[in-house]
Amino acid sequence: MFESWLIAPIAAIISILAGLYFYRYVDKQSSGTERMIEISGAIREGSKAFLKREYTILAIFVAIVGTLLGIFLPKPIWANPDPTQNIALSLAYFFGAFCSALAGYFGMDIATKANAKAAYAAKGGLNKAFPIGFRGGAVMGFAVVGFSLLGISIVYGLTGDPGAVLGFSFGASALALFAKAGGGIFTKTADIAADLVGKVELGIPEDDPRNPAVIADNVGDNVGDVAGMGADLADSYIASIVAVMILGVVLGLVEISLIFAGVGIIAAVLGASMVRIGTKGDPGRALNTGTYITCIIFAVLAFAASYFLGYDLRLWGASVVGLLAGIIIGMTSDYFTSENKKPVLKTAEASKTGSATNIITGFSYGLQSVFPPLLGIGIATAVAYYLCAPLGDGYGVFGIAMASIGMLSIVGLIVANDAYGPIVDNSRGIAEQAGMGDEVIKITDELDAAGNTAKAITKGFAIGAAGLTVIALLAAFRETAYHALLELGRSPAEIESILSFSLMDPKVLLGAFIGVAMPAVFSAMLMLGVGRNAQRMITEVRRQFREIPGLKEGKPGVKPDYAKCVDIATTGALRELLPASTLTIGMTLVVGFVGGISALGGYLAGSIFSGLLLALLMSNAGGLWDNAKKLIETGVYGGKGSDAHKAAVVGDTVGDPFKDTAGPSLNTMITVMSLVGAVFAVLIVQYNLLGILGI
Amino acid sequence: MFESWLIAPIAAIISILAGLYFYRYVDKQSSGTERMIEISGAIREGSKAFLKREYTILAIFVAIVGTLLGIFLPKPIWANPDPTQNIALSLAYFFGAFCSALAGYFGMDIATKANAKAAYAAKGGLNKAFPIGFRGGAVMGFAVVGFSLLGISIVYGLTGDPGAVLGFSFGASALALFAKAGGGIFTKTADIAADLVGKVELGIPEDDPRNPAVIADNVGDNVGDVAGMGADLADSYIASIVAVMILGVVLGLVEISLIFAGVGIIAAVLGASMVRIGTKGDPGRALNTGTYITCIIFAVLAFAASYFLGYDLRLWGASVVGLLAGIIIGMTSDYFTSENKKPVLKTAEASKTGSATNIITGFSYGLQSVFPPLLGIGIATAVAYYLCAPLGDGYGVFGIAMASIGMLSIVGLIVANDAYGPIVDNSRGIAEQAGMGDEVIKITDELDAAGNTAKAITKGFAIGAAGLTVIALLAAFRETAYHALLELGRSPAEIESILSFSLMDPKVLLGAFIGVAMPAVFSAMLMLGVGRNAQRMITEVRRQFREIPGLKEGKPGVKPDYAKCVDIATTGALRELLPASTLTIGMTLVVGFVGGISALGGYLAGSIFSGLLLALLMSNAGGLWDNAKKLIETGVYGGKGSDAHKAAVVGDTVGDPFKDTAGPSLNTMITVMSLVGAVFAVLIVQYNLLGILGI
Repeated sequence: MFESWLIAPIAAIISILAGLYFYRYVDKQSSGTERMIEISGAIREGSKAFLKREYTILAIFVAIVGTLLGIFLPKPIWANPDPTQNIALSLAYFFGAFCSALAGYFGMDIATKANAKAAYAAKGGLNKAFPIGFRGGAVMGFAVVGFSLLGISIVYGLTGDPGAVLGFSFGASALALFAKAGGGIFTKTADIAADLVGKVELGIPEDDPRNPAVIADNVGDNVGDVAGMGADLADSYIASIVAVMILGVVLGLVEISLIFAGVGIIAAVLGASMVRIGTKGDPGRALNTGTYITCIIFAVLAFAASYFLGYDLRLWGASVVGLLAGIIIGMTSDYFTSENKKPVLKTAEASKTGSATNIITGFSYGLQSVFPPLLGIGIATAVAYYLCAPLGDGYGVFGIAMASIGMLSIVGLIVANDAYGPIVDNSRGIAEQAGMGDEVIKITDELDAAGNTAKAITKGFAIGAAGLTVIALLAAFRETAYHALLELGRSPAEIESILSFSLMDPKVLLGAFIGVAMPAVFSAMLMLGVGRNAQRMITEVRRQFREIPGLKEGKPGVKPDYAKCVDIATTGALRELLPASTLTIGMTLVVGFVGGISALGGYLAGSIFSGLLLALLMSNAGGLWDNAKKLIETGVYGGKGSDAHKAAVVGDTVGDPFKDTAGPSLNTMITVMSLVGAVFAVLIVQYNLLGILGI
Repeated sequence: MFESWLIAPIAAIISILAGLYFYRYVDKQSSGTERMIEISGAIREGSKAFLKREYTILAIFVAIVGTLLGIFLPKPIWANPDPTQNIALSLAYFFGAFCSALAGYFGMDIATKANAKAAYAAKGGLNKAFPIGFRGGAVMGFAVVGFSLLGISIVYGLTGDPGAVLGFSFGASALALFAKAGGGIFTKTADIAADLVGKVELGIPEDDPRNPAVIADNVGDNVGDVAGMGADLADSYIASIVAVMILGVVLGLVEISLIFAGVGIIAAVLGASMVRIGTKGDPGRALNTGTYITCIIFAVLAFAASYFLGYDLRLWGASVVGLLAGIIIGMTSDYFTSENKKPVLKTAEASKTGSATNIITGFSYGLQSVFPPLLGIGIATAVAYYLCAPLGDGYGVFGIAMASIGMLSIVGLIVANDAYGPIVDNSRGIAEQAGMGDEVIKITDELDAAGNTAKAITKGFAIGAAGLTVIALLAAFRETAYHALLELGRSPAEIESILSFSLMDPKVLLGAFIGVAMPAVFSAMLMLGVGRNAQRMITEVRRQFREIPGLKEGKPGVKPDYAKCVDIATTGALRELLPASTLTIGMTLVVGFVGGISALGGYLAGSIFSGLLLALLMSNAGGLWDNAKKLIETGVYGGKGSDAHKAAVVGDTVGDPFKDTAGPSLNTMITVMSLVGAVFAVLIVQYNLLGILGI
């Protein structure tokens, strides 16, 4: 008999095939002039070199963690009557890390091809270039969801065990955390060094081929933004599916997540194929229309699936609530970063009185911007809960998890829109470096602007999705602990008291205070890492300008040593990414094995609160500083080169590590912490210091 | 029979007498030359004018709120069989606001006298000037604790009802919130305007008498820092006492808080009288030694009191835990803001590559600085809880409240140390404006540096104290709600479920997400208010330089219109303070009356988490930017006027509203929110929208 959950692997394969189709479409376009091929080749080479070295290091880490998992979980292997469980968990973890790496590699591969092709096509106009950019992004999007859901389906099909899928999710997330932190440090290292020596010290334009850091800067867009955002959303996507599976066990609803995810993929493929731009079209609008169409298709298909498979429509309703919340949260972050809205206008105006007032104003609006999304997440949680609660015990929390799956169902399209951004950003860089003329640069600028608009929405969406997902994961963590405690023979009353996660419980409070501090410490480590790394690179860029004769003057035939800069950024990023990411996992284990399940519950909740707060603050403040600078560059308050512009550049530079390094890594961080908690819960209920001391 | 709690009013009167003694000591010192008297008089006049106008506006607000309280609480007056309760609550509220205002006025009065006197005494050396500065601060400290504890004693003595004392605390806190927000906006308005036009645009030194904003700047130190910090600590002090009272009702331990507070005052008076500086002494060390001695005296006296009055020594232990935590938290914030420690050194070094790197680095260390204090608060909470839990039901939470009282017992001395700072800061300004020569300025600089060191510790202390206090208040809020629900005839199981404040309850989560966002929105409103107000003042300062002939050149006899600037800062601050403070109280009521007690519990906890996070981040980042700038001014990285210095000035300017407006107001904000919750709990349990809708 056809099992209905098989819609998931089928949809996943459709997604991968659609990705291949778009890949071929992009691949057969011309890559342009020799110079363009050369530049694009350098970016490609740098990106691959970075990924290769990063994956080599991470392979060691993954091997160690995966082996330890296999030894100790779900039970210590010597005490487990069924040691295949251990092997399955370990293998699922490896497989998750592998799928995450594969999706990142695949997306980056096409992105570094599509950039030059879109730039060359821009000679033929906006409506020639846009599809290349968008379909390049769609390859990434389809690869991410396709590999993720196929991976989950394989693990689930082989084991039938949501616990093993949890291992898969942990593997994917842990790799995503490292990849994102590393990519984020790389991209801002190169960006800051290129800007500071090039634009500020020497006054040469952005993307000028004389600048030794320019290729590294372009590489950064690919390893940071393409691979980074993809990993972030993949990570939430997988985690939300696994949270629904775990919570669904007692309700007999394990497979609904696979079905909804499969339906979502089909909606995204259909939606993406409808993204069109007329001859006089607006690319930003085309992207957004695609998103809205996808949402509608999902809602309709999911309704039909629920109806035919006999799922209560309240569950479908909860998923729609999540989807709506995602869209609304995205739109509010758009308000805070739009060039024609008050926050950006006021920040640009404040630049007139210097960089300090620019920063205070931008930071203040960033602080205000956290309110609508946090309220949105809170309301979506409560509505989804009370919508499903009448179905019976455990359904309320399950409703929250369904909301997270609804929000993430259209993730294929969101990633596509998002990856479009760095591709066309690169196109602009290549057009500039290859001297393709003002007309082409103008078109690539238009493509780029649409990318920024789409990005504001997708970033808000990503944070909202992470918010709902971690709440669902917190519930899944609790569920795992519940069964582990039951198995240990604890009484229901005792279990209830351990797992109430009451804010009046001192263990919960202790954990919460530590959890609240963690995202702050983590983002500080990443930003300080960027600072240290940028210093090393600045020294190198200055050295090249000083020591390579004719470079500064732009003598024909004189080329900087791009590879050296790529190498410095790579080595530095890899050195800086380990401490922060290891601390994230390590501290979670310390809190768990010292304070026990209650402390860990408080810790996870605390980190969710402050993680979302800081992620929203940093992403939105960074975006609005960027756009305030761009607004001034259009000519207001003195335009380019004025004092106001200089002040706005400072704000933009401060915002860079906010929005591209620390802010977006926080989503992944809190997801990984929740997954660590869920994976280790079964051990922590047995072995924790305070418990052993009888406190 | 002598009731032992009467030690509280007796100690309060001793404190007020000691304050009077120091007042007379300071008052009889010479105020110096005619020019000095003139400047000091202008500062005094401006400060009084501000306070007068502020208090006039707040009187209206207090009258409205107090009347409403009297009508509706503890029960609607028409439904209360004993309407004197309503009148008592209302009167206690007025009385609390009055005491808070009185302490602020009194402290500011002496501070504006002591500044010139200390400056004049500096002609005779450090050991002549220091006692004037310190004793001036001590007047403020003793006034704050004296009036607060006397007020509490009177209310308690007359009513015997902790509920009425809660009203007193709410009155004092609400006034403190407004006063602090208003003072904080005033001080930074003047500071930014004076610096931006004076130092940056015209290149004239700080405190130059030609600058029209200079008097307003000095006024700001008094209305912002002296009155502000005093109000903040008074507010936590009173709240911690009332929290212990409320939690102590069922345990028969209502009066222990009065006794410990009384003992603390005696310790602070003794400790302050021992603060001495030798002829070659170090003022910073003298201040810190005084603090340590006070702690030891308190621990000994509190032990003796517990022993003789038969209180279990575990309660004493919990108070010592709180005191230790306060000291440790203070010392860690000292690390993050000290000129010879890594954070400041690295931030100064980062200034070499511009203001953006200065800001990223300082902000990152600010983020890291939240970890030790949050861990400290978490550990102190847990240790105090588990120390007292063996005494029986309810004692664990009571232990947390005892820790907060222990931490705040020495608050008289902390306020003294803290008020010392702005006094000697003003002395430096007066010495500069009156042209007293380099030798005197050097001595006032030394006094000022000691003030900054002491300030780092007292700020950390204030935040830690607020942290423990709001946790105690959360428990008191719960206790109040518990009895209200009991009175409504709800079953114990139902009450337990409403008041478990479980993180898995969607109402608690919804409340928590809103609560997490509130401190961010609040601080943004204050900082944007500073920005708007500074713009108005900058326009005026520029106008005066442009239109008053001979002012810029410093022609003898030409004086700017100082009063106009003071007036602009005053009007603007009063206009900006109302929205943010009203929102704080209003949103708390909205969440309570819509979502009910569970949502309000989550809301309060969420605001505590993010409030402490942001307060620590902003205070410490602000302090370290300030000191990085000062470090460069000593000559490193090019010294004054270098590019590194310019970059560091930007960081310092960003840090100003962080550390002097938003950061310290957050303590008061979260305390007020908790008090609103506790006061209104009895109404909210009956009337809340979701409850009425049956959700």
